[in-house]
Amino acid sequence: MAIEGSTNKASRRIRLGMVGGGRDAFIGGVHRIASRIDDRYELVAGAFSSTPEKSKASAADLGVAEDRAYGDYVEMAKREARLKNGIEAVSIVTPNHMHFPVAREFLKRGIHVICDKPLTSTLADARKLAKVAEASGALFVLTHNYTGYPMMRQARDMIAKGELGTIRLVQVEYAQDWLSEKLEDTGQKQAGWRTDPARSGIGGSTGDIGTHAFNLASFVSGLELESLCADLDSFVEGRQLDDNGHVLMRFSGGAKGMLWCSQVAPGNENALKLRIYGDKGGLEWAQEDPNYLWYAPLGEPKRLLTRNGAGATEASQRLSRIPGGHPEGYLEGFANIYSEAAEAIIAHRDGKPAPEGVMFPGIEEGLAGVAFVTACVESSRRDSVWVKFGNYMRR
Amino acid sequence: MAIEGSTNKASRRIRLGMVGGGRDAFIGGVHRIASRIDDRYELVAGAFSSTPEKSKASAADLGVAEDRAYGDYVEMAKREARLKNGIEAVSIVTPNHMHFPVAREFLKRGIHVICDKPLTSTLADARKLAKVAEASGALFVLTHNYTGYPMMRQARDMIAKGELGTIRLVQVEYAQDWLSEKLEDTGQKQAGWRTDPARSGIGGSTGDIGTHAFNLASFVSGLELESLCADLDSFVEGRQLDDNGHVLMRFSGGAKGMLWCSQVAPGNENALKLRIYGDKGGLEWAQEDPNYLWYAPLGEPKRLLTRNGAGATEASQRLSRIPGGHPEGYLEGFANIYSEAAEAIIAHRDGKPAPEGVMFPGIEEGLAGVAFVTACVESSRRDSVWVKFGNYMRR
Amino acid sequence: MAIEGSTNKASRRIRLGMVGGGRDAFIGGVHRIASRIDDRYELVAGAFSSTPEKSKASAADLGVAEDRAYGDYVEMAKREARLKNGIEAVSIVTPNHMHFPVAREFLKRGIHVICDKPLTSTLADARKLAKVAEASGALFVLTHNYTGYPMMRQARDMIAKGELGTIRLVQVEYAQDWLSEKLEDTGQKQAGWRTDPARSGIGGSTGDIGTHAFNLASFVSGLELESLCADLDSFVEGRQLDDNGHVLMRFSGGAKGMLWCSQVAPGNENALKLRIYGDKGGLEWAQEDPNYLWYAPLGEPKRLLTRNGAGATEASQRLSRIPGGHPEGYLEGFANIYSEAAEAIIAHRDGKPAPEGVMFPGIEEGLAGVAFVTACVESSRRDSVWVKFGNYMRR
Amino acid sequence: MAIEGSTNKASRRIRLGMVGGGRDAFIGGVHRIASRIDDRYELVAGAFSSTPEKSKASAADLGVAEDRAYGDYVEMAKREARLKNGIEAVSIVTPNHMHFPVAREFLKRGIHVICDKPLTSTLADARKLAKVAEASGALFVLTHNYTGYPMMRQARDMIAKGELGTIRLVQVEYAQDWLSEKLEDTGQKQAGWRTDPARSGIGGSTGDIGTHAFNLASFVSGLELESLCADLDSFVEGRQLDDNGHVLMRFSGGAKGMLWCSQVAPGNENALKLRIYGDKGGLEWAQEDPNYLWYAPLGEPKRLLTRNGAGATEASQRLSRIPGGHPEGYLEGFANIYSEAAEAIIAHRDGKPAPEGVMFPGIEEGLAGVAFVTACVESSRRDSVWVKFGNYMRR
Repeated sequence: MAIEGSTNKASRRIRLGMVGGGRDAFIGGVHRIASRIDDRYELVAGAFSSTPEKSKASAADLGVAEDRAYGDYVEMAKREARLKNGIEAVSIVTPNHMHFPVAREFLKRGIHVICDKPLTSTLADARKLAKVAEASGALFVLTHNYTGYPMMRQARDMIAKGELGTIRLVQVEYAQDWLSEKLEDTGQKQAGWRTDPARSGIGGSTGDIGTHAFNLASFVSGLELESLCADLDSFVEGRQLDDNGHVLMRFSGGAKGMLWCSQVAPGNENALKLRIYGDKGGLEWAQEDPNYLWYAPLGEPKRLLTRNGAGATEASQRLSRIPGGHPEGYLEGFANIYSEAAEAIIAHRDGKPAPEGVMFPGIEEGLAGVAFVTACVESSRRDSVWVKFGNYMRR
Repeated sequence: MAIEGSTNKASRRIRLGMVGGGRDAFIGGVHRIASRIDDRYELVAGAFSSTPEKSKASAADLGVAEDRAYGDYVEMAKREARLKNGIEAVSIVTPNHMHFPVAREFLKRGIHVICDKPLTSTLADARKLAKVAEASGALFVLTHNYTGYPMMRQARDMIAKGELGTIRLVQVEYAQDWLSEKLEDTGQKQAGWRTDPARSGIGGSTGDIGTHAFNLASFVSGLELESLCADLDSFVEGRQLDDNGHVLMRFSGGAKGMLWCSQVAPGNENALKLRIYGDKGGLEWAQEDPNYLWYAPLGEPKRLLTRNGAGATEASQRLSRIPGGHPEGYLEGFANIYSEAAEAIIAHRDGKPAPEGVMFPGIEEGLAGVAFVTACVESSRRDSVWVKFGNYMRR
Repeated sequence: MAIEGSTNKASRRIRLGMVGGGRDAFIGGVHRIASRIDDRYELVAGAFSSTPEKSKASAADLGVAEDRAYGDYVEMAKREARLKNGIEAVSIVTPNHMHFPVAREFLKRGIHVICDKPLTSTLADARKLAKVAEASGALFVLTHNYTGYPMMRQARDMIAKGELGTIRLVQVEYAQDWLSEKLEDTGQKQAGWRTDPARSGIGGSTGDIGTHAFNLASFVSGLELESLCADLDSFVEGRQLDDNGHVLMRFSGGAKGMLWCSQVAPGNENALKLRIYGDKGGLEWAQEDPNYLWYAPLGEPKRLLTRNGAGATEASQRLSRIPGGHPEGYLEGFANIYSEAAEAIIAHRDGKPAPEGVMFPGIEEGLAGVAFVTACVESSRRDSVWVKFGNYMRR
Repeated sequence: MAIEGSTNKASRRIRLGMVGGGRDAFIGGVHRIASRIDDRYELVAGAFSSTPEKSKASAADLGVAEDRAYGDYVEMAKREARLKNGIEAVSIVTPNHMHFPVAREFLKRGIHVICDKPLTSTLADARKLAKVAEASGALFVLTHNYTGYPMMRQARDMIAKGELGTIRLVQVEYAQDWLSEKLEDTGQKQAGWRTDPARSGIGGSTGDIGTHAFNLASFVSGLELESLCADLDSFVEGRQLDDNGHVLMRFSGGAKGMLWCSQVAPGNENALKLRIYGDKGGLEWAQEDPNYLWYAPLGEPKRLLTRNGAGATEASQRLSRIPGGHPEGYLEGFANIYSEAAEAIIAHRDGKPAPEGVMFPGIEEGLAGVAFVTACVESSRRDSVWVKFGNYMRR
């Protein structure tokens, strides 16, 4: 990806709105930086908070005109759809349970949606949203941002090209420690909604981070989950949602996997790790050090592939901005999702499909994420019986 | 552990025999080095091979007198038991299926046994051997050598002292890649017997390395396994025993765990890794870099504890020979098992218990290992149903 | 640093121009991303290339109005200074030899300058520029971007607070491999000007990366260089400037140091590493993995401090955007320089000094960098005699 | 190297004596373990301490017959030379200043010497010893043990075969922290003699560890030092010998190098690191993790070579005992020196040269080490002037 295009900027830029992401929110700010890094979006409208006053205050902070600061996403969707230069896309950065109703309002008016994960807080909502999205002419982008890391693109590409041979094993884990104690009782806002079934849905760590792990493993390996068996726990007393999940997986074609997600593993900040092994080689990657990818061809020394360094392929280079050894991080990976979406949105203006190679997670991946959480919870409740994943993916 | 004692050497040294370990064997040589490092043993007899000629050739190689080279372990046990200066202990380094009959011959004559793992090739044999060992006045030492690593002693000690708080999670894995292809068809001797049910028993990777992982996790965490659920595979076509195992674990008291063992994960040489998390902190260790132990007290920066370095405790220092930064490795860890056993054997001469702090895996750990394999195989056959571990530990 | 401020955006934003950075340039794009990440700048004018046509083409790419695309930096400085909403600051991203003349035009018109390093291509120019900058009411910011990494701020702060005791040793190195072969002969543009004395000055690797290493070591340690002794080489045949430098350093107060810079060390992408040791502890940091800082208090286990994680201090947190474990990288570190400069520029609007804690490299650091290169070259020519650094810092 | 030979043990074993290494000594114990690991030596005599009583006590500890425990190395040399089965070789593990007089007594009687480093405490002694050794028919082995690490053998071999092309750069460092405070004032025995000019010679850190670094760099690179320039310090007040050394090096043929040795760098236990770069590739190795060797062919991804793993060559495999992933450490590396010496001693019995491939540091390397220290001290005293190394190597 060129840092900036070599075409007229005006024609590369997209008018963006945002729902959620007012003062005190976390992920809203991340989305805004991500949208700015490659200069493909201009934030021009928003329903940043639940009251018009707060929303206007945030708008002023963010340089959004006062008359495009809304206290209500329905009003925003309606008016923006009518404006001559209304928004072309909206970022949804609310707690999970609001993703569906908000997305619906924009999608049905043909406004593209860039939505934080997980897709929705319930499988029923996910299925409904899938229908809405498919009926809409607009694009739906889900920010499973870890798929935006260049080395994950390269890994996917290497596997697709058969460099690992037939895939046998997928080991994925996502460990954190920030919920090792009952942080939700201290008034910490993030902990509050992420451990609350009403706002997060039935999955705790499975929904918050397990879905990322599952999505990334699927994206990179190209495998389809056939069934899973799960053992979930809420180790912190009184916590309503799981804070640790152990999952065994069986994929179509015979590959097997393990997935571990935890928010109670002291010493782990944001330790998403993916390892995939085939009959000809293996790959290992860790999100906290994302510019490196270990590649072990069977019987040969391991190689340390670096982003934009020796051994980098087109698949990773097109999402890199700077040379190897100059680390890109989480925000750049997130920006890649935004910039890939921008390519697709620009093409959509002209009624064209996204350019070859452009990819981002969408409604299918979102449904899979919610299905994954639901299947885990159900398997765990039934003493870790294997459950068919396909049953949860039915619409 | 002092490199050498400050007592008369003659009184610290043990007359050792060996069964197995002739030319072309691997683990026999490891046991011999381990026995030599701290100069606590003298190898004086052996039934190294299945024929008297081969056994005598090995004896000559090893400096063992010709008249104490036996072609038959029964003859060896009988004669050595009668000799005035016959062996006090025997190392058994045969394939698994021979551990039981060989150990029995020596134990029943009061000769201490130092036996390679797993204990036996079948659970029935393991139970019988447990009875024989308990009936014998001799000591039984099982070389789960990874428990001899100083940092594993320190980890165990830290957990026992409550530095991690209540343990919630045990993540253990042991990955290799040497059986990624069908090596057993090439005539490679190690691959041959390790994939052969007749010589190894019903477990492949579970028996060969899964037992190590399980033993180490139990040793360090101090937790008792309550039940497990397993999904085993033989990825290499035509292989009779598992070459990959995925296991979920539930421990008494509510802790949970995952165990992964694999011999088909390219890029992994001998990647035994243990991670344990409690409500106050976490520990992480990797066998391939054994002089380091990560310690993460909740809410504080992670510390890198080093063998015999700053932060080392008595538990690890007594098994260290040289200062921090001078790496000790696999052979020294193995030697620690031998030297701990030597302490117990010397004490036994005088009818005393082993000195305080001296510890090594024994018959109970051996039975647990075979029970673990059997439970895994059974759970896997029954579609990963949870099986009670206690059922397999019954004698 | 808050991702975005909680004050009106319009009042936080700065009108920016750029000289250099047209199509095919590298560092210009980095400066633009850095200026966008925290949304404190708006690029509104530029003399991007040496001809009006090319400059206008770049302007269109970048969304800069055609009438503010200049083919000449003098014309740009003059006109922008007169415009009602002319630029408040200019980024200079040309080859080194142009830094002085360009900066002079803007500084003398009271336009703040954000200039790439090294300050100038000659010591004479550096001294002149220092005078111009001091005479100007405008700010001068030099993008020694590595000082913008949060962990480098924390390291500096820890040392200033005495946590390492009296500093004894500074080991700094900056190794790359991209000039291992004669890349400048292939037409590669970056290699071309960086190995050309006419455009780069008398230092090759010393100027390009040695200045970064020296600047960072000085910034973090707080030490003043007293004298140095250098041995420079041009290993690649026919190369006119050094591609490797070995430097010994003596600091005021008795500390000693070594500095190594190289562009011919295969396997090193951008390996800037800094290690500082005092009588109470040590710190180690590597740019390629910038979110981590090793801290070794004497006699205690080493701690791994993480950006925005446990152990992070205010000094690093104010320059962090996202939680620990979510890696920030080179672009965010670079953005920190821009955002610190923004704080100072905004304060300058009101005739106030920069807020407490705000810091960025300026003219003094720039002069020191060029003095460092000059001193290295001279010492090396005189067979590595010790030369007094103060002699080169005289104005 | 096979763990044990496949020839009659008696014919492979060497009768060994030891001078020094009584109770409380450190390195003596290391030598004894090293001599035992491959079972090539039998310790049968010793002058372990300076009094007959203490020497006999140590002899009893070590299983040495009372009548071969001597209070005096001269007596020992005389008597052992006359005994029918007297020692064939002696290990000298005294403080540095005794190496020369002790070695002389044995060498002149045709007894092989295995001597700890550095060779002697003065250059004059080193030159004299060189003459004695050359006049003697006996072998002289200097335990620069780091050259015994398998990956260092492989590195040497790769460089000799041209895999790195023409060598340009050698970066070597050896950092410790144990002398950061004035440990010698506490009565600590090791610190006492190592900081005492009377027993150690004129070099402190340069002699104790700088000689190791220099020896290893020379061994692996195959380069000859032409001149050096040094800046030595005694950071701890009142210390008589250097505790930190910064050295620039110029090699024959144009390669350059830096060497850093320090015993006052907190956080470093025994951090010997070697990096060598040629025009076709680079190698990096760290003693604290000795089973790994990074190999970076120019323009290709870095490879992580492992001892006895994929990519291991004959040069490293012949000195390995166990498979890759089973770490060998410091003691095994030390043992390799002993076992290589054993091969040469056995060949010497028959009047033959050592078998092809067998190598160990000898008198030449010992003289070079003392010359290195002397040159460093002299250069440092003369304000870091370049001194010709050849001048110090003259005999």
